[in-house]
Amino acid sequence: MQSAAYVGDRTITVDEAEAVAPGPGEVQVAVAYVGICGTDLHILHGAMDARVSLPAVIGHEMSGTIAVLGEGVADWSVGDAVTVMPLAWDGTCPACLAGHQHICQNLDFVGIDSPGALQGRWNVRADLLVALPEGLSLEHAALVEPVAVAVHDVRRSGLGAGDRVVVLGGGPIGVLIAVVARDAGAEVLLGEPDAGRRAAAEALGFDCTDPTSGNLTDTVEAWTGGAGADVVFEVSGAPSAVLAATDIARVRGTVVVVAIHPQPRPVNLQRVFWRELTIVGARVYERTDFERSVELLHAGVVPADALITQVVPLTEVAEAFHTLEQGRAMKILVDCRAGA
Amino acid sequence: MQSAAYVGDRTITVDEAEAVAPGPGEVQVAVAYVGICGTDLHILHGAMDARVSLPAVIGHEMSGTIAVLGEGVADWSVGDAVTVMPLAWDGTCPACLAGHQHICQNLDFVGIDSPGALQGRWNVRADLLVALPEGLSLEHAALVEPVAVAVHDVRRSGLGAGDRVVVLGGGPIGVLIAVVARDAGAEVLLGEPDAGRRAAAEALGFDCTDPTSGNLTDTVEAWTGGAGADVVFEVSGAPSAVLAATDIARVRGTVVVVAIHPQPRPVNLQRVFWRELTIVGARVYERTDFERSVELLHAGVVPADALITQVVPLTEVAEAFHTLEQGRAMKILVDCRAGA
Ligand SMILES: [Zn+2]
Ligand SMILES: [Zn+2]
Repeated sequence: MQSAAYVGDRTITVDEAEAVAPGPGEVQVAVAYVGICGTDLHILHGAMDARVSLPAVIGHEMSGTIAVLGEGVADWSVGDAVTVMPLAWDGTCPACLAGHQHICQNLDFVGIDSPGALQGRWNVRADLLVALPEGLSLEHAALVEPVAVAVHDVRRSGLGAGDRVVVLGGGPIGVLIAVVARDAGAEVLLGEPDAGRRAAAEALGFDCTDPTSGNLTDTVEAWTGGAGADVVFEVSGAPSAVLAATDIARVRGTVVVVAIHPQPRPVNLQRVFWRELTIVGARVYERTDFERSVELLHAGVVPADALITQVVPLTEVAEAFHTLEQGRAMKILVDCRAGA
Repeated sequence: MQSAAYVGDRTITVDEAEAVAPGPGEVQVAVAYVGICGTDLHILHGAMDARVSLPAVIGHEMSGTIAVLGEGVADWSVGDAVTVMPLAWDGTCPACLAGHQHICQNLDFVGIDSPGALQGRWNVRADLLVALPEGLSLEHAALVEPVAVAVHDVRRSGLGAGDRVVVLGGGPIGVLIAVVARDAGAEVLLGEPDAGRRAAAEALGFDCTDPTSGNLTDTVEAWTGGAGADVVFEVSGAPSAVLAATDIARVRGTVVVVAIHPQPRPVNLQRVFWRELTIVGARVYERTDFERSVELLHAGVVPADALITQVVPLTEVAEAFHTLEQGRAMKILVDCRAGA
């Protein structure tokens, strides 16, 4: 089989490897498609070298079919179409004991902390599998993981039908949050400085604005009759967006921190106090989010075809990363089927 | 009657004034005691000159008895013991229409934006009155307002019995939050750099620690079995406490922003994301908080005598401010009865 690995020095290579039989409680998945995300790009850029062990087979947005059942795996059959919720928790830390296993204090994020899906055959724990329904294509199913992120973010926000929502950041996660929020009945305004990304989001029916134009606050004020937005999602990672988020939130509004902010950011705590805002962090997903994501993709709520810019064979994974880092794609899928 | 007014230039004067009859819907209160708080000190220091009109009769923590009923006031009688919830909202802004009148977008905070209680007779709107029960002394009742702040802060935090709570800042509001949280069944650790304030809080039965000693995180980790605090109240206003607050909160823990932070503060949003923290702003109070505050004082839950450092006559109000700004008092009450 073929296997793609980050080997350090901003390099990802594709090599022949021997498929290993799945261990007890594992299945061997014939990987179909793997989506590349911003985290994978961070890994390639060396930003997560402290966390990954080289060579690192990465990739955690995937779809495939079960090829081999390991010992003791009873609830699955060879040929089942599946995706993987790539979170392995210890079950014993304070977070797990409090019911927050998805953000276990010793979480193994599969595809980062342990080997991922960018290979022809992938052995994974059967309890991480999520069944795919008939009628959901394996291409679309490769989006289940990022859509689950958006479902989780929206659920954490507590937004409801009729709410006015601003999403700051129009990359894949920002657009997916907009899609999920709209499906939940919210009116959505997307703030994104890049004109190309704005055009892509507008093509999906979203109102867009350039948050760096200097009139974001006025725009939101006018839109909301002077109240401010019910919910703001900070998906951009930009310091200016953190300050804007509290400026445009209504009294008792909610700001959801979705983006990674590697440094502490200035936050207008005076505004948090004055308007009694709530800021919530939202990270990964729980199983309910994964299941809801499958439903949304299956129902056609997510414009999957519009979001998948390109599908490339596993042998061209390095070029795919290059395209992505130049900002020339929304979502690229790697077709791993020939590598099995 | 006598009336104390901030006249600018860090000066507060006491002058003779003519008592005016209460207008329609108002009552004239014979003021008994007025507590001086940090906000009053800010006003004296000129920090709120943009908001107050000179000469400004300030003071919003008070107790008294009704002396005169204005036209149309039906539900009250002369002689009733009362305090005042000093919030006058417009009822028409988006915040009010959404049910958050206490943080109305055009709030008149009585005693800051309009005349306050530091005078012998005070005309106030009858709908701002809160009845005091028999058996609650007028001295203790002067603490209803700051206790209501603490009740509101604790309610906003959502803490429950058995929760482990850290209060950062051991001034009057910090100690009152600790008192209210303890009464709600929480275990409380108070972080305060000043040894004198720590000793005062320890005398009230609170475990205290110096948050600037460098081992706050270790202390909280050890105390909570590696989990972190369920709730952290940031009452200090110190930038270092803002960073500490997210460090010591458990997965899905809550940080309550109580203090005033005039500048945007660096916040560890990575930690907010990673642990799915919630940061909530808490400002003033709602009527339910005021009523609960009266109950807590009436029941003797609040150690009022220990918190009231000094009671001074209205003629010595300037000295009282001076004592307070030197950090030599927890709560000073001004006795306005002789000024009626
Ligand atoms: Zn765990
Ligand atoms: Zn209002």
